[in-house]
Order: sequence, then C-alpha cells, then structure tokens
Amino acid sequence: MIYADYNGSAPICPEVRDYLIKRLETGPFANPNSIHHMGTKTLMGMENARAVCAKIVGAKPKQIIFNSGASEGISTVFYSVLKRAKKAGKTHIIISGQEHSVVINCAKRAQEEQDFQVLSLKANHDGIVDVEQLKIWLKEHGDQLALVSIMAANNETGVIQPYKEISDLCQQAQVPYVCDTTQYIGKTEFDFNKSGIDYAFMSGHKIGALTGAGFLLAKDTTTLEPLIIGGGQERNLRGGTQNYIGNETLAVALDYFQRNQDKLKKLFEKRKEFENKVKEKFPEVVILGENAPRLASSTYIALPGVHGQAVQIELESKDIFVTTSSACSDNEPVTSKVLQSMGVDDHIGRGVVRISLGLCSGPELYDEIADALIATYSKLQQIKSF
Amino acid sequence: MIYADYNGSAPICPEVRDYLIKRLETGPFANPNSIHHMGTKTLMGMENARAVCAKIVGAKPKQIIFNSGASEGISTVFYSVLKRAKKAGKTHIIISGQEHSVVINCAKRAQEEQDFQVLSLKANHDGIVDVEQLKIWLKEHGDQLALVSIMAANNETGVIQPYKEISDLCQQAQVPYVCDTTQYIGKTEFDFNKSGIDYAFMSGHKIGALTGAGFLLAKDTTTLEPLIIGGGQERNLRGGTQNYIGNETLAVALDYFQRNQDKLKKLFEKRKEFENKVKEKFPEVVILGENAPRLASSTYIALPGVHGQAVQIELESKDIFVTTSSACSDNEPVTSKVLQSMGVDDHIGRGVVRISLGLCSGPELYDEIADALIATYSKLQQIKSF
Repeated sequence: MIYADYNGSAPICPEVRDYLIKRLETGPFANPNSIHHMGTKTLMGMENARAVCAKIVGAKPKQIIFNSGASEGISTVFYSVLKRAKKAGKTHIIISGQEHSVVINCAKRAQEEQDFQVLSLKANHDGIVDVEQLKIWLKEHGDQLALVSIMAANNETGVIQPYKEISDLCQQAQVPYVCDTTQYIGKTEFDFNKSGIDYAFMSGHKIGALTGAGFLLAKDTTTLEPLIIGGGQERNLRGGTQNYIGNETLAVALDYFQRNQDKLKKLFEKRKEFENKVKEKFPEVVILGENAPRLASSTYIALPGVHGQAVQIELESKDIFVTTSSACSDNEPVTSKVLQSMGVDDHIGRGVVRISLGLCSGPELYDEIADALIATYSKLQQIKSF
Repeated sequence: MIYADYNGSAPICPEVRDYLIKRLETGPFANPNSIHHMGTKTLMGMENARAVCAKIVGAKPKQIIFNSGASEGISTVFYSVLKRAKKAGKTHIIISGQEHSVVINCAKRAQEEQDFQVLSLKANHDGIVDVEQLKIWLKEHGDQLALVSIMAANNETGVIQPYKEISDLCQQAQVPYVCDTTQYIGKTEFDFNKSGIDYAFMSGHKIGALTGAGFLLAKDTTTLEPLIIGGGQERNLRGGTQNYIGNETLAVALDYFQRNQDKLKKLFEKRKEFENKVKEKFPEVVILGENAPRLASSTYIALPGVHGQAVQIELESKDIFVTTSSACSDNEPVTSKVLQSMGVDDHIGRGVVRISLGLCSGPELYDEIADALIATYSKLQQIKSF
C-alpha cells in the first residue's frame, strides 16, 4: 500500500508513534494548569515542547499559541485583526484565489458581516500569485487595508509563494500579513521571525503529529484576542485545557523534520525523477506549477483528456491512494478554485490528481508510483473520458 | 501515587491507552474527508465513534459536532445563539455564579461587546442554584432573554444542579438552555434528548479519553454557526480536519463508562465512607454541597482554620495529588467564585481541597486518602494558619 495523500493528512510518523506508545504507558497525565507536582510536570513537558517547536520554526516560545490546528488559528487571527481594523476604519482585505477554504470563507464572512471589501489576487499559470497586482493594490488602498492573507505553499499544487517578498511589501505598507503556512512548516525550512510574517499557522496532522493539535505563531501576541474563551490558558489567548499530549507530538514531529533535511533532498530528487519518467512517456502531460518552486514531495499532474477521478480509482486498484484535489472539494468533478485562479482550462483541470508524500514515507516509493501512473495513463488514454 | 484531581483532568484510561497503542500500530491514518478508500475507512471509524457516543449520551449522531472540547463548544454556542438573539432584539442573559470561567467570560464578553445584561443566579449553601429566582427572572424578562446557561454538575463541589427542572422552565419560557455538562457526561447517566437541554458539552480529557477532543450536542444544529471556519467539515458547523483519533477515544472512554455502572456505585459508597471517617475524627469538618446530590467521586472539603494549600502540600508529600479549587484559579489563595456564590465564608473557603477520583481509578484508593487526610489534619491543626 502506498499512501500518497500527505498534503491531505499525513499518517502518524513512526517517531511520533513510538513516543506516544511510551508516553501513554508512563504518563504524566494531569491538567497542566494545576499547581500540584503532576500538573507542573505535565506543564514542563508541554513548555519543553513549545521551546523545541519555537526553536525549529524560528520563533520565541511566547510567540507560539497552542490550539487545535490551522483552521482555528486562521479563524482566530481574522477575528482579532478584523475587529481592531474595523474600529480603526479599515475597509479592505487582500487574499489570493490560491487560498485554502478557511481563508476564503473567513474573508467571505468578513465581507457579509463586517462589510469588508475583499480583493482577490489571481495567479500566473505556474501558480504564483500576482505580486505586481498586490503592489498596485497596496498603493491604491494603503490605509484602508485590514490585512493581506497569502499562503506560503499551496495545498494542491505545492507551489511556494514569494512570501518573503510579500512580507516586505506588507511591512512597507504597514499592513498585517497573515500567511497560511500549514503546508509549509515542517515540510521545508522556515524561520518565522526572519520571514517578517505577522501570523503563521501549523497543523500537526500535516506532518505526522497527532490530529487535533497545532499552533498559531504571532509576531506580537498583544494584537490577538481569544476566539475560544476559557479560563485564561495560553496566556489568555486560547481557552480550554491544553492538548498537552498532542502538543508534545508537534515537537517530536518537528524535531524529526529538523534532523532529516537530507531525506527532504532525496524526496525532491526522486519526485523530479518520477515526473521526468512520466513526461518522457507522455510528453503532453501537464504538471501544475512545474516551473515554480514547489514543496519537495508534491505533484499535481494531469494527462489532458483523461479524467482525474478515473486515474484516482485506477491507482487505488493498485493500492496507491491519491486525491484529485484538496480533501474539502474532493467530491466536485470540476476544476478546483486554485486551478481556476491560475487560469487552467477544464481540459486539464478535470484531469488532475495530487500525489503527495512526506518525510516519513520512503522516497523510493516514487519508483512504484511512476510505474503505476504510466500503466494507468496507458490504459485510460484508450478510453478517454472527455 | 494517588492522583486525585480527575475533575481537573483525568489520566488516560487504561482501555483508551490499549486502544490507542493498537490503533497507532495499525492505522488507518488519512483525512476523513478524502474520498479514497483510506479516507472513507478513516471516516467510517470516526462515524462509528460518533454513533457510539450518541447512543450513550441519548442523542442522535447528527446532533454531535466533534470539536476540541467544552471551552470551544461553549464559545461556539454563545457566539451563535447571541448573534441570532441580538438580531431578534433580545437583551438579557441568565447564568449562575457556579459556572466555569468559560461561561462567566463568554457572558462578560457579551456584556462588554454586545450590550447584553447578565443576570447571575446565586446558589444556596449546598451549592444548588436558586431556581426560585430563575422562575422570577424568566417571568420578568421573558421575551428579552437570549439564553440561560446553568451547568449540570459543578467542577469544584461536584454538586449536581436540577438541570431537568431548569430545562422544563426554559422550554416553557421558550429560552434556549445552554447546559455545561463537562463534569457530568461520562461521570453519571445522561440522556440528552430526554433532558430537554438545547446545548450540552463534553471534553475527552475529563473522562480518560485523549486531550484536545470533545463534542458539542445540539438539539437543533441549524441554530449554530461555525466559530472555527474551514472547509465544510462537520456538516459545515466546525471547520478543520477532524481529530479522528481523539474522537475515537471519546467513544472508547464513554463505552467504558457505560459498561462500568457498578464501579460508579462502588466509588460513591467508598467516597461516602471516606467522608464519614474524616467527619468522625473531625466533627467540625465542612464538606461543601454535602446535602446536595453530588458526583460519585467528588469531595470539596475544609477543616476550618487549616489552609487548603497547606493540606495540598502535606498530601503531596504523601504522594497524593489534590487541588484547592479548579485548575484555572488554583493559584489564588482566596475563596473561589463558586464558593462565594454559595455564600461560603473565607474561614472555610480558604481551607478547601478538592479530592476527585474517576471511573478508571480504584475506589479502594479512598481508604488511603482518608488515612492521609486525617493524618494531615491532625498535624496541621496544631499549627493553624488562620
């Protein structure tokens, strides 16, 4: 079995599994906010995890707010930042059409309920957002802007956005930069404080840690308010007893990532090899974002005329699990919003499958995937669906 | 070592630990929203967990919205219900002084930001909220009421509130009844749909399931909006990839609870025995909520003149871990808000320790706790602190 949907959700990484099995047997278990010894011991474990995570992502421990994952983090930041912005008379938001549905839907709510006007950046054919248009809008709307929300790496194409450049532009314009780093942190090098980004996010399940754990990174936490109200946890920024077990696994997974940079390189090389092999056999094949910097282990690929869902099903019969787009819109047999924003034709858009591996999967799996995809295309090309 | 802070947070229950260890080794791991076989297999496991939970708490599966726990659930309900209520011209909220800080702080935000007027019910000396006053307010403010939020069981005293009666009153007055059942579900029998409650909550870590997982129960889910925005998960009521592993453990822990009702009875008997033993030795001892119905394994006890923190520390030297109040306010050497709302004097309020066990701890631990507490009181009484 080859699981090739790491961008959707990664399996628990073996290091995390081993850590958890030991941890579940030995404890400690307690409320990290209790002052008895079991509580402080639990707290120390969690704070140690915070320090490890902070170091790896280039942040200070106090810039990390543990939560349930990126959707919560992004919802919290939109809630906090837009509330202040509204009071200050701001009227506009800039996002990109590449964004995950959390950002799209947060912006939609801001438009419907707070009368913000949402400006959405298109991307070029390689999936890079239109930075020139961003410059124009930053100039044009300057003081009216509540925030700019542009992701670091796209969940479908794996294309890495020029977030450092965007961050510089936002800083010059003094507009908060919200950067969805969910597909980026723990998949490639990242330094939060050097990036200049105001708010970044991570979900444990994207990198092999426990589901339901994640964190929000804030340059200045005083700009935030809790979305989930509670008893003052996370320095009053996120209510509810902390998911201390989940939070510890974030540190384990990030530490594994940090110690395995060479494996990342290997993944990248093998992915390149796999893509070349398929292109050699089918020169008409389209790899979305091919000429853009991309995550090491992410490929979004289409053979024009062959339906993506047919490819997915055929690969599944060979015990290889891929998706046609992100999990959220997987059931829709239409060109995804991400590809629409890149100006991709339906002819290609309906044919794509996303093949994504991760650090905890073997890079050599790409050989098997290449053979299977070539066999699949050979078979399906004879019964073209559109 | 005796961990006696189950009301703060319960250790992972052995059944959950065994389930997890096996599960971590075998999988499946995938995004439950992906349509490939690994995704649907993961989804089926989660939906099976939802069905198990629903059956045990007397709800329909579609009335369960998985989330990160009760703080999130309560924040979501206040957000949704108050938004609609505001539009409908409602002006008042009723809570009780017994509520967990989530409810207190949600009400405070509603007052500060939405101009709701908050009416707070006091409790009698046994910790039961003033239902007669509730009747008066329901009559007096009838149509102005946005919601009533009164918990099922108190986290400090363990006192069970007459939530069925409150639910009837709210239904007659046609006011939504929000009932914080965090200390109730999985600790004693509960039937959501028979209770008439509109919204109820649970946190896995209170009953031995994984931290960071829980659910919200809603009589009518169409009254809710997502607080955490995402890609349409949980039928568009809670964004973010579901914590499917955590959610499965909720079913394991609730199933354990369901199959061990006899152990619950045993816990109750041994607790009674323990309390009587201490009272026999120290007739002046005060057990908060002594004459009220209480959770099987919860005791909030004070020896007037002996400081609670001294008792806690002395018990800790005997490897027994208790708290002086709830984890959130544990550091404050003052009478807790819950006790203030019961009219408890500082003389007693500053002396309390909370001793709480759970289904996964042995009832016989109460013998050891009784001996240790008696020895502690004997020692500390000679050096009374106030």
